Amino acid sequence: MSSDNQTPVNNAAFNAATDLEIRIRRKLERQHFMHLIGADLTVITPGRVEAELALQQQHQQQRGFAHGGLVATMADLVAGFAGVTLLPDDVGLVTADLRVSYLHPGVGQRLRAIGWVLKAGRRLHFCEAEVWCDELLIAKASATMAVLEPLN
Amino acid sequence: MSSDNQTPVNNAAFNAATDLEIRIRRKLERQHFMHLIGADLTVITPGRVEAELALQQQHQQQRGFAHGGLVATMADLVAGFAGVTLLPDDVGLVTADLRVSYLHPGVGQRLRAIGWVLKAGRRLHFCEAEVWCDELLIAKASATMAVLEPLN
Amino acid sequence: MSSDNQTPVNNAAFNAATDLEIRIRRKLERQHFMHLIGADLTVITPGRVEAELALQQQHQQQRGFAHGGLVATMADLVAGFAGVTLLPDDVGLVTADLRVSYLHPGVGQRLRAIGWVLKAGRRLHFCEAEVWCDELLIAKASATMAVLEPLN
Amino acid sequence: MSSDNQTPVNNAAFNAATDLEIRIRRKLERQHFMHLIGADLTVITPGRVEAELALQQQHQQQRGFAHGGLVATMADLVAGFAGVTLLPDDVGLVTADLRVSYLHPGVGQRLRAIGWVLKAGRRLHFCEAEVWCDELLIAKASATMAVLEPLN
Repeated sequence: MSSDNQTPVNNAAFNAATDLEIRIRRKLERQHFMHLIGADLTVITPGRVEAELALQQQHQQQRGFAHGGLVATMADLVAGFAGVTLLPDDVGLVTADLRVSYLHPGVGQRLRAIGWVLKAGRRLHFCEAEVWCDELLIAKASATMAVLEPLN
Repeated sequence: MSSDNQTPVNNAAFNAATDLEIRIRRKLERQHFMHLIGADLTVITPGRVEAELALQQQHQQQRGFAHGGLVATMADLVAGFAGVTLLPDDVGLVTADLRVSYLHPGVGQRLRAIGWVLKAGRRLHFCEAEVWCDELLIAKASATMAVLEPLN
Repeated sequence: MSSDNQTPVNNAAFNAATDLEIRIRRKLERQHFMHLIGADLTVITPGRVEAELALQQQHQQQRGFAHGGLVATMADLVAGFAGVTLLPDDVGLVTADLRVSYLHPGVGQRLRAIGWVLKAGRRLHFCEAEVWCDELLIAKASATMAVLEPLN
Repeated sequence: MSSDNQTPVNNAAFNAATDLEIRIRRKLERQHFMHLIGADLTVITPGRVEAELALQQQHQQQRGFAHGGLVATMADLVAGFAGVTLLPDDVGLVTADLRVSYLHPGVGQRLRAIGWVLKAGRRLHFCEAEVWCDELLIAKASATMAVLEPLN
């Protein structure tokens, strides 16, 4: 997103991306559990979101691996926000079902989670997520999200 | 487990329970993520484990509900340790698959998770878990756990 | 449901059960896949349904076990119809997510599936099912069902 | 796989493919449930398998959609055989867990399922599958498969 050759169209796309990011970052302020575990969203685009976290001792289970609950949290976070990016600001989205398959133990420096929307429906969003530990895919997840009508 | 009428048999059962609890509690010392979220195991019996956590702002997602990742962590914790109680101390157990169905938003004072073993196999344990928020069942989970051979 | 001591109240309950069963059996006429595999519903009560099937060679995979797809079909059938029993006749229910854990190979004479509703919601029903082969629990399933608005 | 330009190397690859296909097709003879539903494998390559089926009335549930159990069967079939292609002939593979997300109702002429291996392990294979109805992706599945030691 360099600014050299921005035509009006590019500016509009740039502003839309910025608006989306502002809108999502406002919600993140109240994502207390995300702050507790030390994660943050690093990519916010329509239908695709990424998050990262620096692994520390506090994230481990008794064998020194990243806790399965931590990995599930990262997957839920990016799958859910990927879905949120496709909805108006006043429409909520909650996880109905989350499944995580653990392919490898999480041992390393950094977790990176990538979430995307497989199908956005009027009432259900089907999302998927990958969780990587350094250069290794350690988990694959799928989530069924329920669209909540606006509060009024 | 009152002590009034302990026959030798009862004493043996009591001691076995105590040994199991000591063995599990030793593993919990290194369950750093459990400590980070503020949970603790409250019941440790063969094939059945419970955990509790006092809900605080740090556990919330942006709508004020208990985060889906927190609920998944509680489910994984009790399902996994329920499985561990049925294995010798040097045999490990890791989550291969975790699925959580979110029945209700978690809003209240206290989370309580109950995990049990549906089928203990030589190589796979199938476990289930419920997560309650105060008096409401808010999530049901199933986990497939892989038995790890002892390190030697 | 013996007829000896039917008070008017019991008669009403009996008729309600009968009406429910008539209503469900009418839908079953068009359950062509259920007929193809040779299954039938044997118990139809509000929120709980059972189905049975006599195992034959046509149900096997290459090792002689009941095919995983057959077991999933039995689970989907009873979980879905358990949900249908709690809805008005013109409201539909479709499976959004189905998960089956296979505890044991299906080898024997008869499959019996039992489905029930864990939580009936306005938009989602969370259901569970067990599949038994003779006297052995061979599979446990959970299904998330989406309630469809009436066609009008 | 036209035969015009087969170098010796290509011939070896061709023969390996043929051997794999012969080996799998021998197993399919005893896949009675696959024959009952009228499906067949159309692509058999290492780690990736496809199956097809012409939709008929016998495959429908009461609303005229392809039955969820049928879709699950197609997913299980290709996910499982994708895993089998990566194992020696005398090593078995059984489904431990199957999850299917139903994105759209199956209404059309033809089901096509594509299965692949996400991670092949010594004891567990993690596989995925898509099921298409004509040109629409109607289901996404993931399966955890347990590797069985050879009978001896």
